[in-house]
Amino acid sequence: MIKVIIIGSGNVAQHLIVAFEKSKKEGTEIELIQVFSRKLETLVHLLDYDRIATDYNQLLEADLYIIAVSDDAISEVDSQLPFKNRLVVHTSGTVPITALNEENRKGVFYPLQTFTKNKAVDFKTIPICLESENATDYQLLNTVAKSISAAIFAINSEQRKALHVAAVFINNFTNHLYEIGSEICEENQVSFDILKPLIAETANKIMVLSPQEAQTGPAKRNDTATIEAHEAFLTNQNHLNIYKILTQSIRHNGKKL
Amino acid sequence: MIKVIIIGSGNVAQHLIVAFEKSKKEGTEIELIQVFSRKLETLVHLLDYDRIATDYNQLLEADLYIIAVSDDAISEVDSQLPFKNRLVVHTSGTVPITALNEENRKGVFYPLQTFTKNKAVDFKTIPICLESENATDYQLLNTVAKSISAAIFAINSEQRKALHVAAVFINNFTNHLYEIGSEICEENQVSFDILKPLIAETANKIMVLSPQEAQTGPAKRNDTATIEAHEAFLTNQNHLNIYKILTQSIRHNGKKL
Repeated sequence: MIKVIIIGSGNVAQHLIVAFEKSKKEGTEIELIQVFSRKLETLVHLLDYDRIATDYNQLLEADLYIIAVSDDAISEVDSQLPFKNRLVVHTSGTVPITALNEENRKGVFYPLQTFTKNKAVDFKTIPICLESENATDYQLLNTVAKSISAAIFAINSEQRKALHVAAVFINNFTNHLYEIGSEICEENQVSFDILKPLIAETANKIMVLSPQEAQTGPAKRNDTATIEAHEAFLTNQNHLNIYKILTQSIRHNGKKL
Repeated sequence: MIKVIIIGSGNVAQHLIVAFEKSKKEGTEIELIQVFSRKLETLVHLLDYDRIATDYNQLLEADLYIIAVSDDAISEVDSQLPFKNRLVVHTSGTVPITALNEENRKGVFYPLQTFTKNKAVDFKTIPICLESENATDYQLLNTVAKSISAAIFAINSEQRKALHVAAVFINNFTNHLYEIGSEICEENQVSFDILKPLIAETANKIMVLSPQEAQTGPAKRNDTATIEAHEAFLTNQNHLNIYKILTQSIRHNGKKL
């Protein structure tokens, strides 16, 4: 049996708890023996009291400690761990493996997904990016990750940084384009719901086509008349600036092909 | 029975043909009696020869003519129709209803979706935006649209223009962000496939949350350290410019709330 402890009680921590509890029921050899949270009440809906630690000195001995806290809290939490020579990993897309304390064995256990409170996710489909300092630790991380996901990747800190930046484009920025779309709809008294099937199909397409193959629209076609009509239509200066820079970028990419 | 003729043989025309043929089998009162294509061979995989017209003078009498050609060809095609006082609509998101010839009754039949050759779509879920000059024609368009889709909306030319611009943001520009994501992955030797579950979840979220509620990431959190690290990481000047303008826009929107 592999003993795991999660340190943290936020979105990622809670989704991991649910995933490990589920895998335990399915009979894997991974056991989540304890979770650390400064406040007991944030986890009582998920775990019995006796599995929640609120003081670092209550932490049990385990094969793996997963620090699932916000990026800027990782170092502080890590420095408070009252033990040495154990395997400690964080779950961040941006923090390098070297940010962890030298006194323990280090690693990264980064689930690449957007987690929303109260919205269930199928953890089996979530890519988990792993990094460690040695092969034995990697093997253990791989076994633990496999118990909750079917998509495991060995990713070093530099590659992880690239993935995180790319994720900002395809997730944060994409959602912001949805927001601009909804603002344009609102300003013109049409329902944003009309656009939802198109949003779904845009994402679906990319599962079977490359982004280059899937690209359509006036910028791709170099349809100057439509582009000019759109630019004249956009009265919000911020929307207009974004329209121009992305149109320009699509045109430029088209020329590279 | 309502007789429909489609003029055109491109992506939209072909998807409409498939949708009408399917609805006919399901027993609706709509009959696609003929399709016009300058070249016979572009449609022979979908229709028998005797239902394809290659000369405008072969066009039969119908209750509705749907011009499904590219935006800049609409006027030319419309001006060649050898009849008067019939109902003629186009399928464009950008061309106003007034672009059609005064000699016929005008309308718009705009399916708001991205159509890819050889990729089937479930037409039932595609919003169709309708516009006409009078109530009787609207009623007919509504009956025809209902035979292929469950999502029909009355949208005037100004609203349609707004929808089309919004669609460029949530479809064309979103796909371009996918492309930038794939470029960043490629430059750093990581597989773009790792990001696909996140792309899917980003689109899924918007079905149940507003874009404002769904927004996450360093710009939303005003996490300056991460933003600076990302900007230092991006060596491609075009990617960097887009990163900056979208980050700025998310921060600005956050302040408005």
